Amino acid sequence: MDDDINSTANLIWHHATVTRSRRERMNGHSSALLWFTGLSGSGKSTLAHSVEERLHQLGCRTFVLDGDNVRHGLCRDLGFTDADRAENIRRIAEVAKLFVEGGVIALTAFISPFDKDRQAARATFPHGDFLEIYCDCPLEICEQRDVKGLYRRARAGEVPFFTGLTSPYEVPRDPELAVATGALSVEASADAVIAMLRTSGVLRTDL
Amino acid sequence: MDDDINSTANLIWHHATVTRSRRERMNGHSSALLWFTGLSGSGKSTLAHSVEERLHQLGCRTFVLDGDNVRHGLCRDLGFTDADRAENIRRIAEVAKLFVEGGVIALTAFISPFDKDRQAARATFPHGDFLEIYCDCPLEICEQRDVKGLYRRARAGEVPFFTGLTSPYEVPRDPELAVATGALSVEASADAVIAMLRTSGVLRTDL
Repeated sequence: MDDDINSTANLIWHHATVTRSRRERMNGHSSALLWFTGLSGSGKSTLAHSVEERLHQLGCRTFVLDGDNVRHGLCRDLGFTDADRAENIRRIAEVAKLFVEGGVIALTAFISPFDKDRQAARATFPHGDFLEIYCDCPLEICEQRDVKGLYRRARAGEVPFFTGLTSPYEVPRDPELAVATGALSVEASADAVIAMLRTSGVLRTDL
Repeated sequence: MDDDINSTANLIWHHATVTRSRRERMNGHSSALLWFTGLSGSGKSTLAHSVEERLHQLGCRTFVLDGDNVRHGLCRDLGFTDADRAENIRRIAEVAKLFVEGGVIALTAFISPFDKDRQAARATFPHGDFLEIYCDCPLEICEQRDVKGLYRRARAGEVPFFTGLTSPYEVPRDPELAVATGALSVEASADAVIAMLRTSGVLRTDL
């Protein structure tokens, strides 16, 4: 499909024969997006990578989008204003959608504090493809862990608009799964996610 | 990896254990990006989808990025100014890079008329991952085909800056492959691409 036309109205499909369902059949599992959300230090990225490891060992095709591979590349033109954060989330959702179309179980690990942005991301996907996973960890524990020293810096006033301290985190109202990452081990948290993928039909129950 | 920090300097890897090479091993082929470039109507998208079909039948993991799935989604905020076209190409390269990291043979089909933008895309990738495929088809044949009626509209003055007519197409100086899509059948063109993937080591020679 060409891009040399001054209107997107003229864009049409062009001989695509390898479809999502053919890819899913080849892969032996459905594709979906696991959207991890939670405070800084709540364990989103750790959990996403742990789930990915499990899925890989089950023979699944996976990909994790997180701050590192997105902020340095696709979104490196974006800053941290509200508008730029919203655009960041929008692009992440669009890229994740391409991975899902590509037959992959995509996992995203971003704080994504605002319900509005998460709802917009969800609306990008057909019903059932977007699985929101709330990493439910009390602020006190996140701050106590403070793996990257961000809370300390935020308390010192070095980081404006820090989620949980000087900027709100809106708790998901109806996530597909809430995991008490402040109480459970990484292994137990990953168990919960894998179990959800079985009951939701992404994974075959014998896998 | 969290995103809640007002500088990308603080971004670090976070427990990623499923690597590109593990994915490639699981898939049985290397990942790479096939960057198709050429005039509107030169057969880029048709060839990309034909190659994808061949690769799928060989059991490979593939994904085509083209105007349809990119312009309506990830890049729907972009217009057709030079700056927006450059940003469009930049994002496409960044997304393709994620797919390559994901173990996938990614294929992109965009006119990408400017050498500078293609060189920037190439520079996004480690050496050997970016395979530029020039769809070499005379303007006369592209215009004669005019599947989408774009040349007719451009000649009527309805499309400003139309590549090949009122905007330049810079022929790739050193592509990994040039395919005479004006002379060869789609099948023969796809044969040439698959052969190149074998000699470049993306596909095993027994595949």
